[in-house]
Amino acid sequence: MIVCAALVQNSMNLGGLCRTCEVMGVQALILPNLATAQEWSFRKLAASGQQWQDLRQCRPEDVPNWLMQHRDYRRIALTVNDGQPLTDYHFYPKTILVLGRELTGVPEAVLKHCEDRVMIPQYGQVESLNVAVAGAIALYEYRRQHPLKIE
Amino acid sequence: MIVCAALVQNSMNLGGLCRTCEVMGVQALILPNLATAQEWSFRKLAASGQQWQDLRQCRPEDVPNWLMQHRDYRRIALTVNDGQPLTDYHFYPKTILVLGRELTGVPEAVLKHCEDRVMIPQYGQVESLNVAVAGAIALYEYRRQHPLKIE
Repeated sequence: MIVCAALVQNSMNLGGLCRTCEVMGVQALILPNLATAQEWSFRKLAASGQQWQDLRQCRPEDVPNWLMQHRDYRRIALTVNDGQPLTDYHFYPKTILVLGRELTGVPEAVLKHCEDRVMIPQYGQVESLNVAVAGAIALYEYRRQHPLKIE
Repeated sequence: MIVCAALVQNSMNLGGLCRTCEVMGVQALILPNLATAQEWSFRKLAASGQQWQDLRQCRPEDVPNWLMQHRDYRRIALTVNDGQPLTDYHFYPKTILVLGRELTGVPEAVLKHCEDRVMIPQYGQVESLNVAVAGAIALYEYRRQHPLKIE
């Protein structure tokens, strides 16, 4: 599992994702800019996760090309609506999870390079979950289906 | 489902939980102090969730008594280790989920009023997930087992 957070803009969300990815045994976390991982707000939320998590960089405008270079992975976009419910979705072991921008989600230019769209069932008045929370839930579901053996 | 966050100290974590609880259709969220919901840091993370989420107050020192008054609910503590894996846990529909303090978790005085201890499987070097992220994952798993009918 690779998490593509190159579209995520807020460094606190990116730091929070770094902590969660490290805990969940994610292969690599893609940031829009590796320099973000040096920011105080990122490090505060990452809880030292940046020391162990493989972090890579892809500029937001390069995400479509980056996805095309990774067609050996199943590429799925986490969307707010118009997707398969996460509760019914069967993950491939080799998956790239694409997270969207905080306010506008995954743009069409990126969606067209994703084979599946997955959404978390929601029941409230608030439009969506926080992107770091939504990503964490998707990672939990992935690991529920594909647990790592603890050595 | 009621979420007891009366032991959670950080207002951003509480605000984030408020947003998630509202999205997940949680009956009530218990805060250590209702005034927290007026703070800017809470409201920023709650994304207006506080307008719709039933919020109640229980001071941290009153949590054991509060739990004793809610014995008609299954009371479970979310712990970092020494619990049943969330992936194997079967939720009762009528559940109180008790979250711990950010650094020290759920204290023994509260644990003894909880019937079950549940933990999220972790695979990394970072000791734990953020409490708002862990709570969100537990709520997702609860709703996976007990989806709300959307009217």
